[in-house]
Amino acid sequence: MTNSTYEYDALVIGAGHAGIEAALASARLGAKTALLTMSCDTVGAMSCNPAIGGVAKGQIVREIDALGGEMGLVIDENSIQFRMLNLSKGPAMHSPRAQADKKAYQFSMKNRVELQDNLTLRQEVVETLLVENNVIQGIRVRGDAIYHAPAVILTTGTFLQAIMHTGEAKSQGGRAGEGTTGTLSDSLRQLGFELERFKTGTPARINGRTIDYSVVQAQPGDENPVPFSFMNDRITQPQMECFLTETNEAVHEAIRENLHRAPMYSGQINSTGPRYCPSIEDKVVRFADKTSHQIFLEPEGRNTQEVYCNGISTSLPRDVQDQMIHSIRGLEKAEIMRYGYAVEYDFAPPTQLTPTLETKAVQGLYFAGQLNGTTGYEEAAGQGLIAGINAALKLRGDEPFVLDRNQAYLGVLIDDLVTKGVDEPYRMFTSRAEYRLLLRHDNADRRLTPLAAEIGLASADRIARLKKYEVEIDHALEILRTERYHGNSLEDRLRRQDADWSSLCQISPRLAELEISERARDQVCIETKYSGYIRRQLADVEKQAKITQLRIPEALNYKGITQLRIEAREKLDRVRPINLGQASRISGITPADLAVVTMYLKQPR
Amino acid sequence: MTNSTYEYDALVIGAGHAGIEAALASARLGAKTALLTMSCDTVGAMSCNPAIGGVAKGQIVREIDALGGEMGLVIDENSIQFRMLNLSKGPAMHSPRAQADKKAYQFSMKNRVELQDNLTLRQEVVETLLVENNVIQGIRVRGDAIYHAPAVILTTGTFLQAIMHTGEAKSQGGRAGEGTTGTLSDSLRQLGFELERFKTGTPARINGRTIDYSVVQAQPGDENPVPFSFMNDRITQPQMECFLTETNEAVHEAIRENLHRAPMYSGQINSTGPRYCPSIEDKVVRFADKTSHQIFLEPEGRNTQEVYCNGISTSLPRDVQDQMIHSIRGLEKAEIMRYGYAVEYDFAPPTQLTPTLETKAVQGLYFAGQLNGTTGYEEAAGQGLIAGINAALKLRGDEPFVLDRNQAYLGVLIDDLVTKGVDEPYRMFTSRAEYRLLLRHDNADRRLTPLAAEIGLASADRIARLKKYEVEIDHALEILRTERYHGNSLEDRLRRQDADWSSLCQISPRLAELEISERARDQVCIETKYSGYIRRQLADVEKQAKITQLRIPEALNYKGITQLRIEAREKLDRVRPINLGQASRISGITPADLAVVTMYLKQPR
Ligand SMILES: Cc1cc2nc3c(=O)[nH]c(=O)nc-3n(C[C@H](O)[C@H](O)[C@H](O)COP(=O)(O)OP(=O)(O)OC[C@H]3O[C@@H](n4cnc5c(N)ncnc54)[C@H](O)[C@@H]3O)c2cc1C
Ligand SMILES: Cc1cc2nc3c(=O)[nH]c(=O)nc-3n(C[C@H](O)[C@H](O)[C@H](O)COP(=O)(O)OP(=O)(O)OC[C@H]3O[C@@H](n4cnc5c(N)ncnc54)[C@H](O)[C@@H]3O)c2cc1C
Repeated sequence: MTNSTYEYDALVIGAGHAGIEAALASARLGAKTALLTMSCDTVGAMSCNPAIGGVAKGQIVREIDALGGEMGLVIDENSIQFRMLNLSKGPAMHSPRAQADKKAYQFSMKNRVELQDNLTLRQEVVETLLVENNVIQGIRVRGDAIYHAPAVILTTGTFLQAIMHTGEAKSQGGRAGEGTTGTLSDSLRQLGFELERFKTGTPARINGRTIDYSVVQAQPGDENPVPFSFMNDRITQPQMECFLTETNEAVHEAIRENLHRAPMYSGQINSTGPRYCPSIEDKVVRFADKTSHQIFLEPEGRNTQEVYCNGISTSLPRDVQDQMIHSIRGLEKAEIMRYGYAVEYDFAPPTQLTPTLETKAVQGLYFAGQLNGTTGYEEAAGQGLIAGINAALKLRGDEPFVLDRNQAYLGVLIDDLVTKGVDEPYRMFTSRAEYRLLLRHDNADRRLTPLAAEIGLASADRIARLKKYEVEIDHALEILRTERYHGNSLEDRLRRQDADWSSLCQISPRLAELEISERARDQVCIETKYSGYIRRQLADVEKQAKITQLRIPEALNYKGITQLRIEAREKLDRVRPINLGQASRISGITPADLAVVTMYLKQPR
Repeated sequence: MTNSTYEYDALVIGAGHAGIEAALASARLGAKTALLTMSCDTVGAMSCNPAIGGVAKGQIVREIDALGGEMGLVIDENSIQFRMLNLSKGPAMHSPRAQADKKAYQFSMKNRVELQDNLTLRQEVVETLLVENNVIQGIRVRGDAIYHAPAVILTTGTFLQAIMHTGEAKSQGGRAGEGTTGTLSDSLRQLGFELERFKTGTPARINGRTIDYSVVQAQPGDENPVPFSFMNDRITQPQMECFLTETNEAVHEAIRENLHRAPMYSGQINSTGPRYCPSIEDKVVRFADKTSHQIFLEPEGRNTQEVYCNGISTSLPRDVQDQMIHSIRGLEKAEIMRYGYAVEYDFAPPTQLTPTLETKAVQGLYFAGQLNGTTGYEEAAGQGLIAGINAALKLRGDEPFVLDRNQAYLGVLIDDLVTKGVDEPYRMFTSRAEYRLLLRHDNADRRLTPLAAEIGLASADRIARLKKYEVEIDHALEILRTERYHGNSLEDRLRRQDADWSSLCQISPRLAELEISERARDQVCIETKYSGYIRRQLADVEKQAKITQLRIPEALNYKGITQLRIEAREKLDRVRPINLGQASRISGITPADLAVVTMYLKQPR
């Protein structure tokens, strides 16, 4: 009784952080795209904390921006507080983070989606994937309509077979207060996809009117907030304060006494949660000697009293949550507006994907976001962008867009996912990157915008801005290299610990008179001061590249390479690495295995 | 396994338009109140059209404002366009209406709820009412927590056993894209409440980017927008345009050809919809000779491209909706973002209520809003306010707050509901009021704010403003009555067709020099020009009052009045009117029956 059929080039399922970037990229690259999502009122909703960025995540946002994505622009517009983290460390560690006005962020994102040419945003509940001969044909939605397309990007987040837990109480759904989605997991299983289960959690939200602000510590934002987007020169909106309080022994006692009622400990939940974003009950158990844990009280927006209690994510029963909250300094009389909960959901182990995020089993079907076993808005958005780009490029018949581990955190992220898979919800850390001094937030544009320009995802405006910026940098470097002072170049002088731009300006009128943006000036200083380390990392990259870039044909018959150990054959066959580098990162693959593969590839056939 | 119990004075279930006003009123009148709702993200959500007010509905909003409610303040702050309707008719017909920025309205309402002292807003799904010996004890929520309170106000709108229909496709839920709510209907049935079914519908929303604005007609707002709230002197935000287009024979043809697939015609829906807010398929059938129907294209906000197609509410299948939309001038290429649908839901026939909106069967339990078989945000909000007031007054041991039919549209509304019941979704019309010249939007404050002040619901600010306004009016009237021109009082002169305030100012320097607000000046003109009619209605009211105000004891044993016809005994027993007036409005009760009751009441016992 199908009464409607729609034809598109690309379909994106789910308008979360992944889906939005996927759909915008695909539409901008010329594919007629539909973004289908359960509710038009939750486009870009933040399920959990009201913040974008953070250590390593901020770098990802900058990369998304450099590639023409939307996240950076929207957080710049809708942030209530900016902070550059890790400023006391080296530039590789500097990480931008911003508190968001949650609802303003969400509806601004929705508006941008609506304004995008070539992109249809529509409320639909997707129920079934339509596949023929391992090639995607489209999808079927609730109400029995069909959408046809040669490319489908699935970004359903935590919504597959989701169960929410608060203590003993369970209910169905991927996010409290929203609908449930039916049968997509079944559809995936029928197509032969493996699904496993993870869990994540969220803390209670409280009414700010009921906080005693006189006994908690104010946390102001940066005085000179740095925008996420290369397109913005400065942030002009006023900033709000966050507040800091902490747990104490009374809180920990309440938790310990009720641990048997926590779904994670009672056996009600078996799936793995994010190790680096643990619930408060996990923290109390794992760090038994700590007598307190920090809690950031983060306003959820300018126009709401709702406050997010960052640091005490929990799935303990509500009576324990009440007791906990009321034992915390400043929250003695706090009213809970929403209780914390954990959610268990299906994810698809990402070794089932190629580095373009296309599934190996079904051509034209892509997975992105939390569905791939990651956690975090930024990780989701980054994957969405890459999937959207690749879907559109493939439709155009163009080469895939795959970033290397030395080009971007996004390269690290996706390579980790598709090569190593995940055994807990994956989040990005700077330590995951081998060349993190190359992958700084401050050079994301220089690294990636030229690539975006090549495929047609950088706007003319962005390209022009980058060009101007590069010219400024070149000018400055030219002066630094050619001008001398007491026998040394200014460049050398700038490398000295006690030197900075303004001290150089005092000795070089040409430099002092140079018209240069703050951004370009900072870039020159970083590149100069760290040039030794940077050069060394670049040399490493080059050395590695010789080995690792040896491409492996997609259809290589590993089973036929009899010299390979059987285990190695199986693992290589499952992952199907695109080059020797990726092969080397598969867990259990030895240098000897790699030598065999190399020899095999080089022998004439 | 109940692990949490909370104690409140009053519980309000559902934070729709009714629930919000109920909870605010109850908290403001001193009851410790909890407002429990399925999702904190949908507090004050507008399910359907993005507008507040309209004919007779605008009057209700003004009355809600006059009684200290919130709706008027929030629409003033978040409107994108104001229009005073019916300006060509007499002042009784003038009706304010405003387009809302839907999301801004909603989140501004939520913020006001959060800021209210004495009121806890919390996300909960209420599952069961707890009743003992016909007295409410509290409720149980999903997750097995219990809230105790001696007063519970149920305002669950269209969410009870709701089924949504789009053509042949059905799904559960009270509003597309949101969760479903379980077992409340069962709980009500078990308590002996009758439930019946109504349906309502909503049109498709389209993406404004895809409208051809060059061929539709712009509809600007008023040049001098009049605020809803007495607390606001003027509206300063810029106004947006709406647009007008219309259906045509091609659209009607598409509908006629597919009528057998419309749930209302195929037999899939049996329940009654709002006669005065018909779906487009109803209009095409009922007004078969009309070749076109108007469609207002209403932007849903400042920061969204979503556009509401007012006038073509439908539950036809999606392929027919596509065809319809694309046959309309200006919408040839329009993209649908959400399809229209109808929703069938349980309501509780309101003859089960007393005029305070307390249920007759369960003490302390109140019903308000669409649950009572009404339709419209304003009707819902008005009932919520009255229920909230009465719940709090009863808790204080004070007299109930019941408005008469000659005091307010809210009096008419509630009297109609509890006396006559409903056989279709009830909406307000000016024709429902016997004394509509007394119930003007412009005198709502003068009629009702003194009553609000008595029970403690008018802020000091509001009372002071009203006082100042009344003084201005008195001054002006005094001048009009005492100054004479060519032998006539200025008052008499103002009654002449060709006279207005400024013409009087030309002949009276005292009037010209009087410092008076525009609002007070308009009030004086209306009261003076229409004083003859007004006096006549007031006389009528008085005459009626003598008869109708005869109170009937609550416990009157109608079955024992053997002189009464059996049918009359049953009807009176079911409705249990509070006075003879209400008894007279019960359908099927004759003047003879009333005479019997009067005699019975007057005879000494
Ligand atoms: C309770 C909770 C706690 C979390 N805590 C943290 C945390 O502490 N730190 C952190 O970094 N991250 C956390 N996250 C993760 C973060 O929210 C996600 O990583 C991020 O939102 C994932 O983005 P996404 O686009 O993959 O999915 P989502 O943002 O979840 O979006 C999925 C979208 O798909 C739609 N959808 C689902 N099914 C269908 C269907 N069948 N048809 C149509 N549309 C569909 C949904 O409506 C939604 O719009 C948490 C998430 C949850 C739910
Ligand atoms: C599809 C549709 C079309 C409509 N069309 C029109 C129209 O054209 N013109 C018009 O004037 N009116 C229309 N209406 C009616 C208008 O939306 C309602 O009259 C108005 O919203 C009713 O207000 P309410 O407060 O009674 O209920 P709602 O605004 O529906 O609010 C009910 C609240 O109760 C909550 N809730 C429900 N169940 C539970 C539970 N078990 N536990 C906790 N919370 C619960 C819900 O989440 C919601 O917040 C339409 C409504 C719908 C749904």
